[in-house]
Amino acid sequence: MEKQKSFLPTAPYKGTRDFYPDEMRFRNWMFSVMRETVQSFGYQEYDGPILESFELYQAKSGEEIVQRQLYDFVDKGERRVAIRPEMTPTLARMVAGEVRNLAKPIRWFSIPNLWRYEQPGKGRLREHWQLNVDLFGVNSYRAEVEIILIADSILKKFGAPKGSYQIKVSHRGILDSFLGKSLGLAAEKSQAVSKLLDKKAKISKEAFEEEIKVLLDNPSKQLDLIYKYLDSNLNTVGDLPGIDPSSVEFIKNLFSDLAGLGVKDQLEFDPSIIRGFDYYTGCIFEVFDTNPENRRSLYGGGRYDNLIGLFSNDQLSGIGFGLGDVTFKNFLEGHKLIPDLNKKNAVLIPIMEEKLFPEVLKLAAELRAEGIGVETMLESAKLGKQIQTAEKKGYQFLLFLGESEVAENKVQIKDIISGSQDLVSRTELISVLRKSLLG
Amino acid sequence: MEKQKSFLPTAPYKGTRDFYPDEMRFRNWMFSVMRETVQSFGYQEYDGPILESFELYQAKSGEEIVQRQLYDFVDKGERRVAIRPEMTPTLARMVAGEVRNLAKPIRWFSIPNLWRYEQPGKGRLREHWQLNVDLFGVNSYRAEVEIILIADSILKKFGAPKGSYQIKVSHRGILDSFLGKSLGLAAEKSQAVSKLLDKKAKISKEAFEEEIKVLLDNPSKQLDLIYKYLDSNLNTVGDLPGIDPSSVEFIKNLFSDLAGLGVKDQLEFDPSIIRGFDYYTGCIFEVFDTNPENRRSLYGGGRYDNLIGLFSNDQLSGIGFGLGDVTFKNFLEGHKLIPDLNKKNAVLIPIMEEKLFPEVLKLAAELRAEGIGVETMLESAKLGKQIQTAEKKGYQFLLFLGESEVAENKVQIKDIISGSQDLVSRTELISVLRKSLLG
Repeated sequence: MEKQKSFLPTAPYKGTRDFYPDEMRFRNWMFSVMRETVQSFGYQEYDGPILESFELYQAKSGEEIVQRQLYDFVDKGERRVAIRPEMTPTLARMVAGEVRNLAKPIRWFSIPNLWRYEQPGKGRLREHWQLNVDLFGVNSYRAEVEIILIADSILKKFGAPKGSYQIKVSHRGILDSFLGKSLGLAAEKSQAVSKLLDKKAKISKEAFEEEIKVLLDNPSKQLDLIYKYLDSNLNTVGDLPGIDPSSVEFIKNLFSDLAGLGVKDQLEFDPSIIRGFDYYTGCIFEVFDTNPENRRSLYGGGRYDNLIGLFSNDQLSGIGFGLGDVTFKNFLEGHKLIPDLNKKNAVLIPIMEEKLFPEVLKLAAELRAEGIGVETMLESAKLGKQIQTAEKKGYQFLLFLGESEVAENKVQIKDIISGSQDLVSRTELISVLRKSLLG
Repeated sequence: MEKQKSFLPTAPYKGTRDFYPDEMRFRNWMFSVMRETVQSFGYQEYDGPILESFELYQAKSGEEIVQRQLYDFVDKGERRVAIRPEMTPTLARMVAGEVRNLAKPIRWFSIPNLWRYEQPGKGRLREHWQLNVDLFGVNSYRAEVEIILIADSILKKFGAPKGSYQIKVSHRGILDSFLGKSLGLAAEKSQAVSKLLDKKAKISKEAFEEEIKVLLDNPSKQLDLIYKYLDSNLNTVGDLPGIDPSSVEFIKNLFSDLAGLGVKDQLEFDPSIIRGFDYYTGCIFEVFDTNPENRRSLYGGGRYDNLIGLFSNDQLSGIGFGLGDVTFKNFLEGHKLIPDLNKKNAVLIPIMEEKLFPEVLKLAAELRAEGIGVETMLESAKLGKQIQTAEKKGYQFLLFLGESEVAENKVQIKDIISGSQDLVSRTELISVLRKSLLG
């Protein structure tokens, strides 16, 4: 018996994705729509290395990321490094490095690949791509107006219909004054309570109350206040004792400006919006998919003051958001917003006669010079088989070049979809293809 | 005395690059020209995860890469993984995984970020980006015709003038028959001699002869043959005893077809072309910069049969090349082929009067809907300072909106370059900007 050969697996590393041409076409399309939107607001693209020093994340990222999710290791030169789990630390490092030379406001975006060691599940992988949009150097609430307008414009650019998403907004100043003044909690307890509020939607009412009572000195009174807080709207939240009036005013101004820009029905004040990251200091927001089968946070962000404080004494306030490709793709699929991306702006030329191959290459070069993509077959085969290949590759147009066509300087053009086939001159060919493929 | 605060460094990890907006604009431009060229030949983009299993490289990459240059580590789940040092193993894995479903010929390209632990130096970093172009499923020399035509087309697309580069071509069949038959060397010695031939250009004649004599049985006669081989051209190499005639014929056919496609003067048969990788099995080529200050290999590739043999019993011949961004940028700079990339397709609107800010946002929205990018200032400042900001950001056009302009539904448009300033209607504005920015 022959010894069985053992093969390497063809699957990618656990929790990651291969982008075959179909998936890659989707990814390029999705990012190009995002890029176009943020560039229309004057944002400029940047990027940094996917490996950074471990200490950058140790200093800037949350404990859960650093201790449990970071891909960190020691390099061959004894430097401790990590694959980036988020872009903000790199952004802060880069902005800090040039903060005195950069014209304000700084408007930057990036679409980095990010890695976290997680148990893969629906909408959660070990790597994803994330649009990061950030604005630095503007203290006024108008920075929030612009960032939320962009978050909304991206969805509109993808054709997201009314009611398919919701933008929930709150302010750390409201939450902090509620925890510290309305409830009278000390800093440590405040943090524990805010973490519980963040996960409230995911647990039962009983579990929530049981857990929160442990943290409260006067549970019956304080729990009543908590429910009042969670039920409040922009007009009533200020009635709670101790709530910071300037933060409420801030959100009111923001909502009023956004309404004038067509962002109104999809906007909602929601005091339960927390956002996991420690570095948010002002307004925070989160965009939700309203699809009942996919009701989840799509993306979010907020204001972070003094992001560059770890690198320099300079002061710079920023605001931004991050949008991950996996959940966003689910949104586009759920609302049927993905167009046909398989339409090719290219044609295929089979080989009719072996000796005419140089003519095939010449025709291909002519068409490429006109901006028309051309794939040629390179080996002779039965014509039926070559047409099958064209179909499998998704081509609409095939060009046939036989001896009589070459003699007459003409080409047969076959439209696979309509089934028609026409003999045309080279000039006609170019105008037909331009109209059909590039128009 | 106040305790001094210690800051984190703002420099990126050793041997890597930050892409600030200027560098990123260059990178995007360079890749878009490459993308456009290879897509015009019907190539489709793919990508894979930047982390792969260690065993993939252990099985496929050269010893030097695996033992000394690989960024490998053990993940939190005890899997040994590595950051990709080259794309070919990922490509082989992906093609193998779908080999029976993919229509042949398979034409794929990718522009991955690759990492190697190296001592950073000129043109050599720890990370770079590399265009990878590959064609599978064609045994005929026409695959070589196409791949070398693409390698040439890329340079032409960037405007590389005649004489700025050279494409040197050889064939493993010629080298192997020279080593094995002309010189009569056994496999091990063949490999050592071929390594020496590869580094000959970098060492002195004396050093070369000293090192090679140790490997030869009959140094005087064999060294004479080696010099004859290195001095040979396509018409004389076949005169050496034992040279495989079919490989010579292959290169002759290739050169003849390429000459018909305008690739002639830049093409040269060079029997000393070796290429480092073990997996090349047929034609090999390398593109050289002829700039005397940068005379070096820009990129290269060749034919590799049975690339997917580690994954399956299926047979599939491939040919491809890889082009790194760092050396290629040096080429473009050396030959002054980089256009002005700072031209903005956007305008900036300063704030003339605080209360007119909503009008600024409305005008911005109008222009964005017409495809014109708009950056607006968000906080009031002296007009002179806002114009300075516009200049620093590289804008050509500024739009001014004062009370009288709003009342008349007009806009002042200032051209920073010419210094002119005109009062125009909204419709005129759009047509002026379209022509200047998008035309």
